[in-house]
Parts: sequence; structure tokens; C-alpha cells
Amino acid sequence: MDVVEFRPEPHEYAWTFGGAAPVREVEPGTVLRLWCDDAFAGKIRSVTDLASASLDPRFLNPQTGPFSVRGAEPGDTLVLHLVDLTPARDWGASTLVPFFGGLTGTDRTALLHDALPELTWIYELDRARNTVTFSARRSEFSVDLPVAPMLGTVGVAPANREVRSSLTPDAFGGNMDTPEMRAGVTCYLPVNEPGAIFSVGDGHYRQGEGESCGTAVEGAMDVTLIVELVKGTAAPGWPRLESDDELITVGSSRPLEDAWRIGQKEMISWLSALHGLDPLDAYQLLTQISLSPLANVVDTNYSAVTKVSKAFLPRVDPYDGIHRDLRARATEITGSR
Amino acid sequence: MDVVEFRPEPHEYAWTFGGAAPVREVEPGTVLRLWCDDAFAGKIRSVTDLASASLDPRFLNPQTGPFSVRGAEPGDTLVLHLVDLTPARDWGASTLVPFFGGLTGTDRTALLHDALPELTWIYELDRARNTVTFSARRSEFSVDLPVAPMLGTVGVAPANREVRSSLTPDAFGGNMDTPEMRAGVTCYLPVNEPGAIFSVGDGHYRQGEGESCGTAVEGAMDVTLIVELVKGTAAPGWPRLESDDELITVGSSRPLEDAWRIGQKEMISWLSALHGLDPLDAYQLLTQISLSPLANVVDTNYSAVTKVSKAFLPRVDPYDGIHRDLRARATEITGSR
Amino acid sequence: MDVVEFRPEPHEYAWTFGGAAPVREVEPGTVLRLWCDDAFAGKIRSVTDLASASLDPRFLNPQTGPFSVRGAEPGDTLVLHLVDLTPARDWGASTLVPFFGGLTGTDRTALLHDALPELTWIYELDRARNTVTFSARRSEFSVDLPVAPMLGTVGVAPANREVRSSLTPDAFGGNMDTPEMRAGVTCYLPVNEPGAIFSVGDGHYRQGEGESCGTAVEGAMDVTLIVELVKGTAAPGWPRLESDDELITVGSSRPLEDAWRIGQKEMISWLSALHGLDPLDAYQLLTQISLSPLANVVDTNYSAVTKVSKAFLPRVDPYDGIHRDLRARATEITGSR
Amino acid sequence: MDVVEFRPEPHEYAWTFGGAAPVREVEPGTVLRLWCDDAFAGKIRSVTDLASASLDPRFLNPQTGPFSVRGAEPGDTLVLHLVDLTPARDWGASTLVPFFGGLTGTDRTALLHDALPELTWIYELDRARNTVTFSARRSEFSVDLPVAPMLGTVGVAPANREVRSSLTPDAFGGNMDTPEMRAGVTCYLPVNEPGAIFSVGDGHYRQGEGESCGTAVEGAMDVTLIVELVKGTAAPGWPRLESDDELITVGSSRPLEDAWRIGQKEMISWLSALHGLDPLDAYQLLTQISLSPLANVVDTNYSAVTKVSKAFLPRVDPYDGIHRDLRARATEITGSR
Repeated sequence: MDVVEFRPEPHEYAWTFGGAAPVREVEPGTVLRLWCDDAFAGKIRSVTDLASASLDPRFLNPQTGPFSVRGAEPGDTLVLHLVDLTPARDWGASTLVPFFGGLTGTDRTALLHDALPELTWIYELDRARNTVTFSARRSEFSVDLPVAPMLGTVGVAPANREVRSSLTPDAFGGNMDTPEMRAGVTCYLPVNEPGAIFSVGDGHYRQGEGESCGTAVEGAMDVTLIVELVKGTAAPGWPRLESDDELITVGSSRPLEDAWRIGQKEMISWLSALHGLDPLDAYQLLTQISLSPLANVVDTNYSAVTKVSKAFLPRVDPYDGIHRDLRARATEITGSR
Repeated sequence: MDVVEFRPEPHEYAWTFGGAAPVREVEPGTVLRLWCDDAFAGKIRSVTDLASASLDPRFLNPQTGPFSVRGAEPGDTLVLHLVDLTPARDWGASTLVPFFGGLTGTDRTALLHDALPELTWIYELDRARNTVTFSARRSEFSVDLPVAPMLGTVGVAPANREVRSSLTPDAFGGNMDTPEMRAGVTCYLPVNEPGAIFSVGDGHYRQGEGESCGTAVEGAMDVTLIVELVKGTAAPGWPRLESDDELITVGSSRPLEDAWRIGQKEMISWLSALHGLDPLDAYQLLTQISLSPLANVVDTNYSAVTKVSKAFLPRVDPYDGIHRDLRARATEITGSR
Repeated sequence: MDVVEFRPEPHEYAWTFGGAAPVREVEPGTVLRLWCDDAFAGKIRSVTDLASASLDPRFLNPQTGPFSVRGAEPGDTLVLHLVDLTPARDWGASTLVPFFGGLTGTDRTALLHDALPELTWIYELDRARNTVTFSARRSEFSVDLPVAPMLGTVGVAPANREVRSSLTPDAFGGNMDTPEMRAGVTCYLPVNEPGAIFSVGDGHYRQGEGESCGTAVEGAMDVTLIVELVKGTAAPGWPRLESDDELITVGSSRPLEDAWRIGQKEMISWLSALHGLDPLDAYQLLTQISLSPLANVVDTNYSAVTKVSKAFLPRVDPYDGIHRDLRARATEITGSR
Repeated sequence: MDVVEFRPEPHEYAWTFGGAAPVREVEPGTVLRLWCDDAFAGKIRSVTDLASASLDPRFLNPQTGPFSVRGAEPGDTLVLHLVDLTPARDWGASTLVPFFGGLTGTDRTALLHDALPELTWIYELDRARNTVTFSARRSEFSVDLPVAPMLGTVGVAPANREVRSSLTPDAFGGNMDTPEMRAGVTCYLPVNEPGAIFSVGDGHYRQGEGESCGTAVEGAMDVTLIVELVKGTAAPGWPRLESDDELITVGSSRPLEDAWRIGQKEMISWLSALHGLDPLDAYQLLTQISLSPLANVVDTNYSAVTKVSKAFLPRVDPYDGIHRDLRARATEITGSR
């Protein structure tokens, strides 16, 4: 397996999906060993670093990449298998950003309130125990929480010549902020531009569903992933994920019901194609088996997950069983480290 | 323990929260053994029973009750512990109701499309294997799914003299349609009217999160529950549930993000009160630990769940540990059957 | 013409649509001369009367009525022609109610902000000049604004046994808060319960579209209206209004796009029925001629208006020309005062 | 006055806001005489041209421009005064695009319905009578409607390096689709990128508020406008318009209530700055005087207008009276034609 390592310098960060020149061209089958800075570009390092003073809204969610995939054409499916996500620092950070978050007025839900107070929390990482520690700032309370590394952003260049901020989730993936984007998962994305032009970033050491206050336990991440490509016309309409046990779709829009509808319809398409189900039968089956955890209710689009256990389906190997194959390859890599 | 049994005749069904005369007055501490008809009032019995021909929109979600609780006053907290939910028929039914459901135009999302085709699915129950069988109607496909009994509706009389259809979820509980409403859970509801005036119904043999097509595996249910009352001013603003392992809140509104916000804010209030947390600290903690599964995206209000694992919290016994006490009492009951 | 006068004492106010006993039964054709208290039930009388201290949320939007209309049956159309609206006090009031309004967090858009500051504005009425005067409270600024009397609430008993707060707009009319509800307009409402059981209230001396802060220039109102009834099956799905120059529909729901969709679809139905238009042709025509002013973005449902100029339509007299007839009758009344 | 004429060839059309190279650099004060193709790039020319066969979703809303304005820097305000809009063809077109429009399922409101039938309407223009003729396609009905020329899209390059499709309205203006964008109006836009990089297009011979079916009476347009620049830090947050009689703001987002909130808050900021009003006083005043006509409920963001009559305000000349000055200059131009 080809292995490409890339650790961007700050001046090499990308800040958009689309619009940035690829940092590398890679062959399908390549293993990428990457380092991603955190969503704050490392600017929040202590509880005294507050968002309005430390952050520049033009420089959030730095992306590692983009990478161009040789041979990828519009209509193909980009396949990214997350082999390993390991925290790259010994602490993570979360902060209240003025007029950003699920329980505050925002630039869109434009209200007359003053911003909520600014506060920053630093989470110390205990690698031995695999925990991060929440310490309340205005009250006496602390608790250790399991580390559950995930990537907030995985995306390709958008369709129709658009360039979107790395803060945005949409059909091209992007800032979906779902805890489902963890090691062991294969992500399928539609290719919109030659080369796919994908990037990753926004590591979270853990995150609840919804990402209520707008920022997870944000932390730099070492990422190992395998790049693959499925040629042809079966590209998904919206991001799909596959784990050993589940099929997952992610819709992103506003209002939130539309994000959910998108993911549900994408799953109905997927189930119908996999199992020869009539769409109304798939609608009915989904009604009884769907898990519907929210991803984020804070970003420029909200994201909602639709998840189906493979246990409720006949044996099936989407995309010719590429997930199983990638899991095997991943074992080789992690075994050989 | 006082035990009251009640199996309503069809003319005794209630169709609203508020507005119906109580069928019984019960003391706090009473065990209720109830039978609930299904959401269709039993009118959908085979795949040839279609919604538009078989159902009367004025007679859906029949309620068993309402019950008046002696001593309950506005400001108190009604406590309902679900001891046991057992399917009361050997089959469940699900159907596509014209202009009702998550992926169709509706009376509110008023579009110019014709209704989706009408279809009914009947799920045979296998009590030995504890499964229901999904059989596709327009394709060759069937699968056995685990039975997971729950109640779609648990509610009290609304505030401000309102009377709401039993199809509506809101601050008074009602048709929340969340799979969290299962045996072993304690439900806390605000008392708005003297006697609380609560009812239950809408049994589901199982349901996915979101209740996509609008109807779960609907089935008549035998329900055993214990009624309790917490006097005083700590009534929740919105429905709260407690299981052995989790604290749960349910918000209901439109658009869906508001349903979620309500549940999140209610959980922040709960956590702040239980643990002396500043609300912004609780907001931060919730951001990292919240589970946010959807309940329904089909009813007159949508419902979203916020769920927190007790494992992430110091030992705490909300409402003076009443859940633990009720679990113990439940064991006595189920042990003695 | 039968003339019925009714000026309720405070203990005779109704607070709901549905659920209250009729204060009078009237024959179709009756002229009603009514007095309505303001939305605050007269509790806000000076700039020092603040909402949280002066108002009881259970006693807002007092209704004058309800009236039972002899012979009205479900499926009929209630017709209310507003002959005259005259301010009944020499001042109106508007106030900021905590967590109520378009640019604040609310009980539904549940956020963590403190409430906006409370403030009350009193508008002096100059009957000679027909103006009310806005005087800024925290800045030096005042301006005279034309009086434009309207009724915030006109509604019937809801369908399906529901009882709704007088703060709610829906298919039954209610608290639509649209400036279109002015003298000279005929309002068509579906009859859901025998007798229709309608009431009016919530006079506004003027109001912008959207009712941004939640309260208009609220003032007691002398109301003259004529009650009519159209028997048969052509009841509108949602409130319709007719003026000399315009056809108007009002949709109420959340999110706001659904309120608009409802009104648009109702207008398409109306135009199709009046002119034999195919629905898609009506959709196209509406696209080019619809006026879409908002009514309220603050109430428990939001309300949006769809308005079409009769100048763009062939001569047509909806409901057999009843509006024209009522205008003639109104002239007799106002001429004879 | 410098006069620049520009009539793009099809290969010179721009399809985005941002991301396209300027076709000309112009000085502030320049008069631009432009020709804009219609939203369909001229591909819908008869009732037999249907959207799915004739249109390429990547090539809609062709822009004339973009133009770079010498000296424009981020933080400045771009001023575009629409001097004249004259239909450039003798017919306009409107069509139903599958899964696009206000009363259909869409890519976002993702439902299981088939697309509505496709239909195209051609509107013949009568220049003498200044009308376009609606002729129903599936029914016997036709009516002449007044021509009311407007531009659907007026926008600058977005902030934060984004490039957005010319189908999108947002803070940068763009595809707002409001009938307020007519001759005689001055449009103020924030400058996000050096040169502002603005373009115009999407002429409508007329349009209702909301643009219900998704397409207005689309037609090529001859456009005369004057470009100005206000240096300094008073850039609006969102598009503002000024006519002789009104101040106007336009918000664009989803759900629709957020679009409205944005425009309302922007107007409160504007009124507060112009008149020294406290924001809560401006909120109150706006409540009683705001007109709130919808712009579009169909585009990737919905747009809502907030409009205030200058008659209700003390004499004020925003941006140092530039609108009055531009009106005078416009008279010179139109007088000299």
C-alpha cells in the first residue's frame, strides 16, 4: 500500500470545500497519515482564551488537504475509510462563541439579546484511562468522560462551482459534526469535481449529539485513512457511512426536519437499491427500525443522522463489499504500526 | 398496594387531553392494570383495510382514562411508573395515511402533490421469539424484528383551559411517540389541572426514531403502571423520564430545532438543580454527553429527546429517589403475577 | 335587521375558542354591536404597568362571545362582515412581554438568554386627526401614526373537540393578528361545531405586518358586524377574507413557510373553484400576482396572508355575491347611526 | 458621467457570486448599460420547452458581470442605483421545474412524491399597453397583467472566501427575488472582497411576492444602473434598499422566520442609527409600522422584506443623501436618452 504522510504548516491549511489547490494527488488505495489542527486553529489553549478575543471567524475549522484523487470524475463515489483517530494533544478545548450555538440567538436566528457570557473549558486528556475531564467553570463539579475520537469535517468540493466555508455541512459532506464519523467507519461521498478534492479536519475528542453549545471537545488529531474510488453512476446523493454493524446517512439543511428528511430519503434509496425494495416498503421498514440521532443543531446547516442496523437486513455488501475489504486492509496497517 | 383494573369499552374511550370526564379517581400509590386499544381504534385489521376507508380522523389514538389523582394540584408533579407493557393482540398494524407522515406533503406542509399510495402492513407477533414480522407489500422481502413495546401517548390535561387532540404532543406530554416510553421508566409530568387528569394509549410493539411514515407497529397493549404524586413547586416545565441508567427530557414543537431546544433547556434546568451546576456549565457538559434521538417528525408537534447517562453524573436521586422506590415496588408486582 | 348589543362584564369574557358556553344565540342576518376589551384585559394602563407584574398569562386576549349561530352545522361556512371598528378608549398600549415576541427567545425557541428588558408604551389617540402617537421610552423621538383599526382575533370553535387558547391562530381563525381584518372586510370561516360558536376580540388601533414585538397598539374596540351563514359543503379549509378589491387567505402554522404554503394552497383552491382553473394554472397565476404580507411571527402559530387583487380576475362573486350584499347592508347600518 | 456598456456573449456569463473574474473594472460614479439574459439562459422559448429537457441545473441565472469597483475594500458599502429596467424581449417565460418551488417537495424538503407535472407558460409582452398575458395551459383562462420589471439577482462576492451559485440569496444579496428591486431604487450591499465584484441578472417582467412556483415571468432585460461607493465602516450587515418613499431591508435564510428576523433586526439597526433610537424603541416602532412582504419561499435560502415608509420618520438622508443625488443623476440619464 502507498502511504502518504502530510502534516500541514499553518500557512498550508485550507478553509473551504472547493476553491483551494490540492496539496497532493493520491492514487486510489493510498493510505494517508495526516495531522489535523483543531477547529480553533490552536488559538484556544487555556480558560482565559475567549472566542471573541482569540478567534478570527475567517480562520476556523482548518482543513488538512485538499487531496486530489487520480481518476475521480463527477458521478463517481469517493470512499474514505477511517482507520485510526488518535488525539494529537494532551488536552482539548470548548468555548462559547458569541451568537453561535444551539441555545443562543445567532446571525440567522437574529434576536435582540446580548450575547451569552463567554467561557472556555479545557479538558485534560488521560491517555492511560482514555478519558477527558470536564471541570465546571462557575460551579464545583468535575467528571471524567470517555474519549471518543471523531472528525467533525470530511468533505469534497461542492457541485455547481460553489466554494463553501469549512464550517458548512451539505450534500458534499463537510462540517457534519456527527459522532458517527469515527475510526472503523467507511464514508461514501459523491464526486462533484475532477479529483474529488477532499479534505478532513475538526477533530473532536468527544461530542454529544447535537453539539449543543457549538463546540465539542475540540482537539488536534492524528488521522489514518485509506482512500478508495468507486467508478460509475451509483454516487450517493448525500453522505453515506458504513460500519461493521450499521448503514448510516447524513442529511444537512434547515430547518432541522429537512435535514432529517434528506437522510431518511437517502436511506430509502439505499435500502431500495440494496434489497430490491419498493420505496414505500422501504419507508415502512425504516419507520420501524430507523435510529435518528442528531448530529449538529448549530452549524450553517443542521445535520441529522439516519442509522439502520445491518442485523435487520439480509446479508449485503454495499459497493461490492468495499467496507469489509477496507477493514481488512486497516487491520494490516494498524497491526504493522 | 391498591390495584385498579380498567378495560374501556369503545364508548368509554377518550380522544383528548383535557375536556373528558375522569373514568376513575385514584389515590397516589395505586397500581393501574389497563388495556389500551391501538391508535386505529382497532379499525385496521388486514392489509386490505386502508386508512381513508377505515379510519375516521376524529377517532384516532383512543385514550384509556382519563384518571383523576386525588390531591393533585397545579404545580405538583405527576409520576407514572411503567411497570409492564405487554402486547394484547397477536398482530400489529401500520398504514400510510394520506397526507400524514414525515416524507409526504401534509395539511401543514401544504403542497400540490397527490397523496402517496395507501398501503397497510400487518405484523404477526411471535410471542415465543418475541418478534414481529415485517412483510413487504410491493416487493419480496420479510424480516423478523424484536418486539420493543412502548406507549406513544402519556399525558395530562393541558394548561390554560386547553383541550388537545390525543394526536398532539406538547408540554403536557401526550402523543410524544418516543421509544423511550417503555417498561421500567418513570415519567414526570407537570400537573396543570386539579386531579392531573391523565390518560395513556397508542401502544407500539416497536417503532423507529422519528416514526417516519406516521404509524408504528400499532397494537393494543396491556399496561401496568404505578401512579405517584410529588407535591410542591418543583414541577418540570416539560415531560421528564427516568430509567435506571438515564435522565431523559422530551420537547415538542415545530420546527424540529425548537423541539430539540426545549428538551435541551429542560435538561439544563434539571442538571443544574440536581448538581448545583451553573446553567452555562450544564450547557457545556450537555454538549459533550447529550444523546439526541428523535421521537417523532410526523405529529402536530414534532418531538425530540435529550438523554443523559447517569454514569456521567454523581449519584443523584431525582425527586427524592422515587424512581428507585418505584422500581422496587414494580418488582413486587411483577414477581407476584 | 335584528340588532343585538353585547358588552361583556369582565366575568363574562371568554378565553378560548371552543369550550366556553355561548353568551347569545343569534339568527343569520343579525347585526352585532359589541365591545371588546384589549388583549391585556385592560391591565396595562400606563408606562409603569409592566407585563410580568400586571398580566396573568391565563387571562390574555379576552373574547367577546362566543355566539352560537342558529342553524350552523359542521361543513357550513360562517360569514362575518366587519361593518365598523372604532377605538373605544382614547389610548392604546403596547408592551414587551418576557420571552414573547419575534426577536426574543421564547418558550419554544428555548434559549439561555435572560429576558429582554420590560418596557411599556402608551399611545394617545387623537380622534380629530385619527392618529396615535408613538413616544420613545429610552430615546427622544415621537411620531404620529394613522389609526388603522383591526381585530387580532376572529374565530370559531375548533374541529375534533379541541379547545384552544385565545392566543392561538389556526384553521379555525383565532389570533391571526393580520391588519387585513379591518372594517369593510367579509371573513369566511369553516363551521366545526353546531352553532359555529364564534367570538371576536384583541382590537388593535394599528399594527405592522408581523407584529414584531408581540403586541400591537392594543386597545378596546367597539365592533359592529353582520353574521351570515352559507349552508352546504363549500366550507373553506382555512380562513378566507374578501374586500371590495381583494381575495385573501390566511394560513397559520410553524415554521413560517408552512403558514404561507397553507394560505397559498387555499387560494389555489379558491381560484380554481371560482374560475375553473386547473390547479397548476392557478399555481402559475398566483406566482405572478400573489401579495404575501406576513400577519404575525410571534403567536403560538405564525400567520401569513395570501392576497390577490380582483382586478386581475374576471368578475366573480364568491359565495353568491354575499360580500357585495353585506356591503350594501353595512351602508344602511352606518348610514342610520 | 462615465458610461460603460456591456452585453455578454453566452460564454461570458457568470454563474456564481464570487469566483468569477471581473469582466470590467469601473470607477465609482459610472453608468452601466447592461443586457441580462433570462434565468433560463434563453432555453425556454415555447410552451413545449420543458425544464427537465431544456435546462441544465449548472447553467441557471446567468449573471451579467461581475464588475470590479475601483477602490472598494471590505467594510465599504457598494451602492447600486437602478435607473431603468426595460424588457429586452417581447415575451417572458415561466415553467415548473421538477422538485423546485414553494408547493412541491424539493431536494431539501425531501419527500417520496413524484415530481409535479412539467408545464411551461409563455407571456407575450404588449409594449404599448405595458402588459404581459397569462394564458392558462390546462384550462380556458387568460388575463393581461401589468409589466413590473425587476431584477431577481443583485449581489457581490460573499465573505469568507465563499463562492455561491447565482441561485442563492444571502447576506451578499444575490438571488433575493424581491419585487422591490425595481427601477428607482438604490441598493446598498456590504463589500466583502476588494473590488466588491458585483453582478446582476434574472430579470422578471413581473412577479408575485413569494415567487410561489419558483419562476417569475422570466425575461431578458436591458438594465441601466449607476455604481457608487461609500467608504468606511458603516457597511450594512444585510442588503438594504431605498426608494423615494421607503427604507427596505432583505433577510435570507431558512426557516422563513429567520429570514424575516434578519431583515427586522437589520431595520432596527438602521432606524437606531438614523434616528438615535434605542433598539427597544426601534423594535416597538417597527412593530407598528413594518410592512413585511415576502420575496421568495423557493430559493436555497428564503427571502423576506421589511419595509418602512419614510412618511413615519423624520426627514433623514441615509448615507449622506446619496439616494436623492442618484435620483437626480438618473433623471439626467433618462432625460438624455
